[in-house]
Amino acid sequence: MGVVLFMENFRLDPWGHVLIEEYEKLFKFFGLSPTKNLLERIERIGGKSKLYSRGIVFAHRDLDKFLNTVEHGGKAALVTGFMPSGPFHFGHKMVADQIIYFQNMGVKAFIAMADAEAYAVRKIPRKKLLENAKNYVANLIALGVDPKRAVFYMQTNYEPAYYRLAQMASSKVTTSELKAIYGDIEPGKVIAIFTQVADILHPTLEEFGKYKIVVVPVGPDQDPHIRLTRDIAERLGTDIPGLSKPASTYHKLMRGLDGGEKMSSSRPESYISLNEPIEIATSKLMNAYTGGRPTADEQRRFGGVPDKCMIYELYLYHLLDDDVLREIYDKCRNGRILCGEDKRFAARLLRDFLDEHQRKFNEIINVVEDYIELPKY
Amino acid sequence: MGVVLFMENFRLDPWGHVLIEEYEKLFKFFGLSPTKNLLERIERIGGKSKLYSRGIVFAHRDLDKFLNTVEHGGKAALVTGFMPSGPFHFGHKMVADQIIYFQNMGVKAFIAMADAEAYAVRKIPRKKLLENAKNYVANLIALGVDPKRAVFYMQTNYEPAYYRLAQMASSKVTTSELKAIYGDIEPGKVIAIFTQVADILHPTLEEFGKYKIVVVPVGPDQDPHIRLTRDIAERLGTDIPGLSKPASTYHKLMRGLDGGEKMSSSRPESYISLNEPIEIATSKLMNAYTGGRPTADEQRRFGGVPDKCMIYELYLYHLLDDDVLREIYDKCRNGRILCGEDKRFAARLLRDFLDEHQRKFNEIINVVEDYIELPKY
Repeated sequence: MGVVLFMENFRLDPWGHVLIEEYEKLFKFFGLSPTKNLLERIERIGGKSKLYSRGIVFAHRDLDKFLNTVEHGGKAALVTGFMPSGPFHFGHKMVADQIIYFQNMGVKAFIAMADAEAYAVRKIPRKKLLENAKNYVANLIALGVDPKRAVFYMQTNYEPAYYRLAQMASSKVTTSELKAIYGDIEPGKVIAIFTQVADILHPTLEEFGKYKIVVVPVGPDQDPHIRLTRDIAERLGTDIPGLSKPASTYHKLMRGLDGGEKMSSSRPESYISLNEPIEIATSKLMNAYTGGRPTADEQRRFGGVPDKCMIYELYLYHLLDDDVLREIYDKCRNGRILCGEDKRFAARLLRDFLDEHQRKFNEIINVVEDYIELPKY
Repeated sequence: MGVVLFMENFRLDPWGHVLIEEYEKLFKFFGLSPTKNLLERIERIGGKSKLYSRGIVFAHRDLDKFLNTVEHGGKAALVTGFMPSGPFHFGHKMVADQIIYFQNMGVKAFIAMADAEAYAVRKIPRKKLLENAKNYVANLIALGVDPKRAVFYMQTNYEPAYYRLAQMASSKVTTSELKAIYGDIEPGKVIAIFTQVADILHPTLEEFGKYKIVVVPVGPDQDPHIRLTRDIAERLGTDIPGLSKPASTYHKLMRGLDGGEKMSSSRPESYISLNEPIEIATSKLMNAYTGGRPTADEQRRFGGVPDKCMIYELYLYHLLDDDVLREIYDKCRNGRILCGEDKRFAARLLRDFLDEHQRKFNEIINVVEDYIELPKY
């Protein structure tokens, strides 16, 4: 644990793509532990959650330590960041669900808008970023993130101790290490990396409330950041009082509706935004890739393949409770429901969800600057 | 101008050493202009100064533009930084003299303590850096820097807009450019570079007073920073409103008392600290490298060589007014004064200067935290 270990053919790239079939390798090569061994304990502390019972959050580092702190009434925080580079979609909602789950345990959430990174690495205009950041915060609150238990901040507009941490962290890593993890690095990326390190570590500082431990919910593609950050926390040692190694959890990444890799704002057909007109959202859903057979007849005879189906993935991650989910799954496998009917059912659930969400969003967006301080540019 | 141009055998390295004989090349290859053409105008605005009349500040970029702003009552600022990595010595005093000269024109001074860089690049412990920073600020004020016309700040403890500028600047430069300028770059250096860019450019931002132009007094070894920063100001264009290209001046670097290269805190015999016991300072002076001949007899016959003499350099940069300076110079050249007698004369001047300075310093050091806000670590 804590050792940065890379296999030639299994390098995880936070700015690239991940083979989502390869999760199992994470246990083997990178020292992650499966969450299923902790399931009973998690549910005892935080209540039942589809995130854990369905294995959406499937792995962790030091989550047991984190839970110890929570159980003994110690100050614990969750840290996450959103790159406000495109529309807020169902992939983001899954992270919101995790924030809410931990907040309900009494955990404080530090939520970064990664606008410094989005500007420097993705080259997105500042104006767009500020607009998106407001939009993201309003979406998170509309979904149920409790602003009283959260700190929302822009990477470009925060406290000196946060930047000091990024500056100091930079002295503890070599160029070779960065290259081994991230491949070729441009200056903007170097800054982004240490800003992310500060995002993760800063809640343990006195200036931010001296939290004893943080947990970072990430996709497995972000694990290199986590490993680097854990090493840096150790290397900074006594130079920064109170710094502790972060715990982390790993969630499966929602695949795109188009059936390709992960849901991504760079492919509009791959995601449904929580803010798009319901007609467009519905039409994307109706065009989604499913696990259906070539003909209705074959499907009635052989059944569908829910594990390949993006509609099923929407159910699994977002839209359905256990009992109905099980029912649909069985019906599909047995060929008793065809994709058209199923999609219409999903579309009704989606419409109900979006209706309610957009109503809340429209209230919050007007007052969102009460919750996040935006710079002028 | 503005083009980064490097000759294989004439790369200036801000972290390394510079051949101080090569100043002339700066005009030829790097587009600097000699200050002597502006001398009359400078003295009309700022009064007489040995810095300019003696050619200590020998070159500039856009100083004419800067003086235009000052003459027309526009807001103008000086920017400088000190790496608080060792004792404050006579090399630093020369920069203080420049700050004071510009302050007397009504120019505001922004004075960085480059503690982020000192920690990340020079690996100096934080505790030592905080101690040194206080010491530097107290020395500057004791020398006559007016704290009412100055902003002293730590690189690790400043305003969000300053860090935002560093973050945004990082997106406008490639790794290849950085390598061409600085050679191999570690992550700590990358952070230090963009922090310095923010040091130079931030006073033109609205958040810091919207100064129309800044001037940066540097040694020629710092010119690569200046050229890069000018390019970045241009490239950031409309993304940051108000940003303007910095002007700069170039001063000769005091050589070490030991006759080697520039005065540097890494060679204790090379400098006299403004805070060291007067006996030690005197003894360093008495051991300084001079332009004397091997024997007294030869010196009486052929005269000394003031241009090679470190005592003369102390006179030239710091200790003597024009008339006495001329007299000593002539006496030395004509063999009418030997090095021993001359050193005893210099030692008296040094003692008087240090006595007075240390008295003022001891008053100010007690209240120095009124002038600079230090972080806890």
